[in-house]
Amino acid sequence: MLGSTHGTLTTTSRTARVVACGERPRPAVHGLADAAQDVDVSGRPLQSAVPDLDRFFRPETVAVIGASDAEGRPNTGITRQLIAWSERVGARVHPVHPTRKSVFGLTCHPSIGAVPEQIDLAVLLVGDPTPLIGELSAAEVTFAVAFASGFAETGPEGAAAQARLTAAVRASGIRLLGPNTNLNAFERFRTDLDGPAIALITQSGHQGRPVFALQELGIRLSHWAPTGNEADLECADFISYFATRPEVGAIAAYVEGIKDGRAFLLAADRAARHRVPVVAVKVGRTETGARTAASHTGKLTGADEVVDAAMRQFGVIRVDGLDELQDTSALLARARPPRSTGVAVYSISGGTGAHFADLATAAGLELPTLSAGKQRELHEWIPEYLSVANPIDNGGHPVGDWRGRRIIDAILADPSVGVLVCPITGPFPPMSDRLARDLVAAAEETDKPVCVVWGSPVGTEDAYRTTLLGSSRVATFRTFSNCVTAVRAYLDHHRFAADYRSPFDDAPRTLSPSARKAQALMRPGEQLSEHAAKQLLRAYGIRVPREQLVTSAAAAVRAAAQVGYPVVMKASGPQLTHKTELGLVKIGLTSASQVRDAYRELTDIARYEGLPLDGILVCQLVGRGVEMILGITPDSSFGPTVTAGLGGVLVEALHDTAVRVPPFGEGDARAMLGELRGHALLSGVRGAPPADVDALVETVLRVQRMALELGDTLAELEINPLLVLERGQGAVALDALAFCR
Amino acid sequence: MLGSTHGTLTTTSRTARVVACGERPRPAVHGLADAAQDVDVSGRPLQSAVPDLDRFFRPETVAVIGASDAEGRPNTGITRQLIAWSERVGARVHPVHPTRKSVFGLTCHPSIGAVPEQIDLAVLLVGDPTPLIGELSAAEVTFAVAFASGFAETGPEGAAAQARLTAAVRASGIRLLGPNTNLNAFERFRTDLDGPAIALITQSGHQGRPVFALQELGIRLSHWAPTGNEADLECADFISYFATRPEVGAIAAYVEGIKDGRAFLLAADRAARHRVPVVAVKVGRTETGARTAASHTGKLTGADEVVDAAMRQFGVIRVDGLDELQDTSALLARARPPRSTGVAVYSISGGTGAHFADLATAAGLELPTLSAGKQRELHEWIPEYLSVANPIDNGGHPVGDWRGRRIIDAILADPSVGVLVCPITGPFPPMSDRLARDLVAAAEETDKPVCVVWGSPVGTEDAYRTTLLGSSRVATFRTFSNCVTAVRAYLDHHRFAADYRSPFDDAPRTLSPSARKAQALMRPGEQLSEHAAKQLLRAYGIRVPREQLVTSAAAAVRAAAQVGYPVVMKASGPQLTHKTELGLVKIGLTSASQVRDAYRELTDIARYEGLPLDGILVCQLVGRGVEMILGITPDSSFGPTVTAGLGGVLVEALHDTAVRVPPFGEGDARAMLGELRGHALLSGVRGAPPADVDALVETVLRVQRMALELGDTLAELEINPLLVLERGQGAVALDALAFCR
Repeated sequence: MLGSTHGTLTTTSRTARVVACGERPRPAVHGLADAAQDVDVSGRPLQSAVPDLDRFFRPETVAVIGASDAEGRPNTGITRQLIAWSERVGARVHPVHPTRKSVFGLTCHPSIGAVPEQIDLAVLLVGDPTPLIGELSAAEVTFAVAFASGFAETGPEGAAAQARLTAAVRASGIRLLGPNTNLNAFERFRTDLDGPAIALITQSGHQGRPVFALQELGIRLSHWAPTGNEADLECADFISYFATRPEVGAIAAYVEGIKDGRAFLLAADRAARHRVPVVAVKVGRTETGARTAASHTGKLTGADEVVDAAMRQFGVIRVDGLDELQDTSALLARARPPRSTGVAVYSISGGTGAHFADLATAAGLELPTLSAGKQRELHEWIPEYLSVANPIDNGGHPVGDWRGRRIIDAILADPSVGVLVCPITGPFPPMSDRLARDLVAAAEETDKPVCVVWGSPVGTEDAYRTTLLGSSRVATFRTFSNCVTAVRAYLDHHRFAADYRSPFDDAPRTLSPSARKAQALMRPGEQLSEHAAKQLLRAYGIRVPREQLVTSAAAAVRAAAQVGYPVVMKASGPQLTHKTELGLVKIGLTSASQVRDAYRELTDIARYEGLPLDGILVCQLVGRGVEMILGITPDSSFGPTVTAGLGGVLVEALHDTAVRVPPFGEGDARAMLGELRGHALLSGVRGAPPADVDALVETVLRVQRMALELGDTLAELEINPLLVLERGQGAVALDALAFCR
Repeated sequence: MLGSTHGTLTTTSRTARVVACGERPRPAVHGLADAAQDVDVSGRPLQSAVPDLDRFFRPETVAVIGASDAEGRPNTGITRQLIAWSERVGARVHPVHPTRKSVFGLTCHPSIGAVPEQIDLAVLLVGDPTPLIGELSAAEVTFAVAFASGFAETGPEGAAAQARLTAAVRASGIRLLGPNTNLNAFERFRTDLDGPAIALITQSGHQGRPVFALQELGIRLSHWAPTGNEADLECADFISYFATRPEVGAIAAYVEGIKDGRAFLLAADRAARHRVPVVAVKVGRTETGARTAASHTGKLTGADEVVDAAMRQFGVIRVDGLDELQDTSALLARARPPRSTGVAVYSISGGTGAHFADLATAAGLELPTLSAGKQRELHEWIPEYLSVANPIDNGGHPVGDWRGRRIIDAILADPSVGVLVCPITGPFPPMSDRLARDLVAAAEETDKPVCVVWGSPVGTEDAYRTTLLGSSRVATFRTFSNCVTAVRAYLDHHRFAADYRSPFDDAPRTLSPSARKAQALMRPGEQLSEHAAKQLLRAYGIRVPREQLVTSAAAAVRAAAQVGYPVVMKASGPQLTHKTELGLVKIGLTSASQVRDAYRELTDIARYEGLPLDGILVCQLVGRGVEMILGITPDSSFGPTVTAGLGGVLVEALHDTAVRVPPFGEGDARAMLGELRGHALLSGVRGAPPADVDALVETVLRVQRMALELGDTLAELEINPLLVLERGQGAVALDALAFCR
């Protein structure tokens, strides 16, 4: 795959900076070794393995394997760009090629082993990088980048080739970016911009282009990691690394697939601990996970809902468009933490202010009514007949003179105002030019974010291009919608970060006594009977009705007397999933004769349907309550997840469920219930008493414990219904399905 | 309020075109007179009163009342702009001022009566236009525009002043634009653009600026109607007028409030009949209507939901942002009707295509998989390993040469493709410049819409500014989201327009026999008892349970025997609204003694609570079914509306309701039920039989008939629950509340 040698004789002064091979110690980049001991009860890590990527982004030595300067070869352009980039970052470049003597005037070595110094970063411009890994390892190379394509993106054969590459890399101690990546990390970044920067991670290079182009609008970018196929280094590694880089104000990510859910969560957790916002586009809104599980939880929780939940739990701001990725990460990178959550809307047109306020309020932003004193102050400059309560309408004229700046400063000085938004619908230079200049000047003197929406679709106006984009303190948007999204994300992020407590700190590390009891009940590869599934729940302290499993009508009558009338009778067996539809549930039996009849009828139906039974359950009839569903469902990326929803007949009609990825705390369990559209049912409607939400939350947390401890043997669990009784009375699992792996 | 005279001696050649006053007949602009006979049973009009606005937008004669050329007077700039506009449209201008002899060289007349010819359009630059209306009427002026502010926008006093202005205008036969409007109608429009145009209507001038500025991006605008306070001419008048203007391809509206709901619906209906799309921003997402009605329907249906429903019923495309208003109306104005609803996504990056396809599919767009033959054809130019099934990924290189155009033409030639979307995430001139040129060239030769998303935030690139915006055939967007919204609206509009059948054609014109029966039951100002409310339903053929109203225990026992055991017993009285919570409902009574006990208990509770009763209802116990809620709720703008939702206890917890504004047909009644999140409950879940949806739809239509016939005397109606039995068994109103005006 390597091109022929047509070297030039140009030399670079940097080749003088050769140091002896091995003089500098290689940084420990496979952090996994250190963190390996710290795992939760499921064996999953509790800390992010943070690679030290300093020498990836700022290497002192670079080798280009397969370097070329032959005209017309694709590698020639790449080599040229790598040499230029190395010069910019101050690295010495060593071309490597089996036959060339020099490339672009630099001495070319026949192999990596022949390079006279230790290499921080080897760029592999070869068709198949796998055979080279051993050689790179022997030469103690720290990082490698593989551009080659034809791996997992092409199908099963490519995936196998990629697995071999991954294995070679893991064995080598080298950290690899790629394969199927590109030159994005080695672009020419603007170095004249200041302030906190955006660090960019993309799984598709082209899709990072708009965020990179923000530099042309004056927004600083510090890094670009195009992770490609992620045979080794993945998105999570870069999030973890960027989270503590001082120049990084926000991390923007374009994600097509999450390679390792836990690694992603740990990286997001690390960013949350350091209060660094992560804004992500995650493709896959419409992917329907390949689920075949029989229980409803599995059907109702699509994989994208899990991604959504996981991101929300760990504070990752998910957006849909690249324009939102740009605008939101640009605001979050540069704005300081808010001193109030109030948004002031200031405009030169009442209509504009009302329109923005309408959309902002609909999105949950809070527009505080300004105090009477503040309104009096504003009316010194704004005519009395205009409303300045917020939105603040100045009617236009005051922005044309000295009053304009006074008004802006007065609004910014108000303690109820955390963010100022000035939507400028159309440019009218006598007003908007001065307004833009005043906003920029005011923004320089405040630590509150000043946001401007420049509504003209033209976008070549001087006030926009020069004045507003020329300021690193004003956040400029082109649409109301993107401004509202970004301001909302900004306030949400800081609220989240201020309250953040990592659930990994509280994750269980050792098996509970419940787990030992539960493991004895598991039947590998089988569905448990209702009776066995309920014993599993009981092992975890989840309440089930008093019940007995009987195998004769006489035993049923005895059981009913012990359980207490009225009773419920149900068929119990390893293959039963829709008992109500099959007539295998009898409710409210009040006498021995009814119990005897029911026993006969249930066993008849089961025989007729060919369903093996382990017996008939005679159960206590529990009072009234709110029917919920709780379950454990596996996710291919995040492992076992916990779902809660409205139960009973409603679950199928309304699809009203919420999901969480363990580990999560009590607050998240409550938040999950709050996400249900029907959550008001728990507060008691139409005279019903409020339900025992505390008991429900406790049950959710017990189910989470099951997910953590049994997740790899318990394929799926569904409690439906979980009857949540009135406050103080608890919650009872009336039925349960469990599938073992 | 008029300025002093400082006329210049400049004359204009147009003053030579004077014609004798009264020579031309005035058009009949108050169309109401003709349509007045055609009203529905509620007395509301069935046809849009379409004003002939030709001479408003293209007058032959213009008078400027309060004209000025004195330096420093606001009216001077306005006069100058009006003279320039008049020259552009070929109108003769007559300044009018009590003391000036000439204005900008034009002879100035002391009053409108002194102007030597009949005036099409009088522009009133005076502080209070009301006193002038009589004079204008005597002079047979056709249209007037009033810029003055200080009317309804300022509060109750201003509203009273506006009412006086409206009364004067109505009496005069003149049609008035304003007050509180501006010069937007008289802007300088680009006349060098061709193709179908956007006609713009705005209630706030400044908010129309971005759509007007689209002309700078090559999109034609034909009219701008800034309707201001709408003392007379309103948004609906302009929609009706624009709907049949040949140059108008789409109507874009910025609406803050709908003055007359019925006029708006009739205008939208007219646009729908003529297949002219109306795209509207309607402010008020967060306005909570000022409702105090006691029933739940009223509380759950906010006024904005009514606006939303009304717009959907009549095909008005509602968007939130001015950017969406621009992009959607620009596409709809110019794209011809689709020949297929399939969307092909073509990109130079697999990531870009996947991302766009994800968002498009999530929004309900359909991306057909291209046929094997078409895929083979595309693979002639696109490498085999790239997917061309749709999205079509060309990998980049083919766009750089002759293959690029072939690929585009091959996609456009596919019969499954109705729209081509090419998202270009980042400009890479060697590829994107030629791609843009090829797309423009291909768009010229197809009648299918070609949409391009130019994702670079910079927006000064040549391929974007010159190539793409230079084409009137390519629709160019800046974000995926706006492109998806516009394409969705385009396909929805044409589907809607193709199937449209005006509900006004079928609206009842005469009272039904039911109405006469019902009117006898009404009690002005009172709430009806459950028994009376059910008689009202029965009058309209809505089924209620067998029941008797009794006033003694003995009568209750006799009634139960006639109704048939088991029975339900309920207190019935004029003030009862939450009977279940008060214990005033007894269900499933199976014996005379239970009936006797229940009678005593119900009357005891009512006495204890101080609730007057008209008796106790003994009702048939109806079998199982799906509990729904149906109701009539008044809307201040649209009159009585019909609401349907999940009933029983769920209605409060889930707020799952949908609303329609009469008149609507059976299809809309079904669509309303389909909007319910819980609509699957009607199909039968968990083994329940499918419900009698036909009977439910029939009941909705009967309730609509009640709304039309009784709407002005019946303040509110709520049927809750309406029990929808299994298919073929009908629907029964188990309880009802009715409030008379």
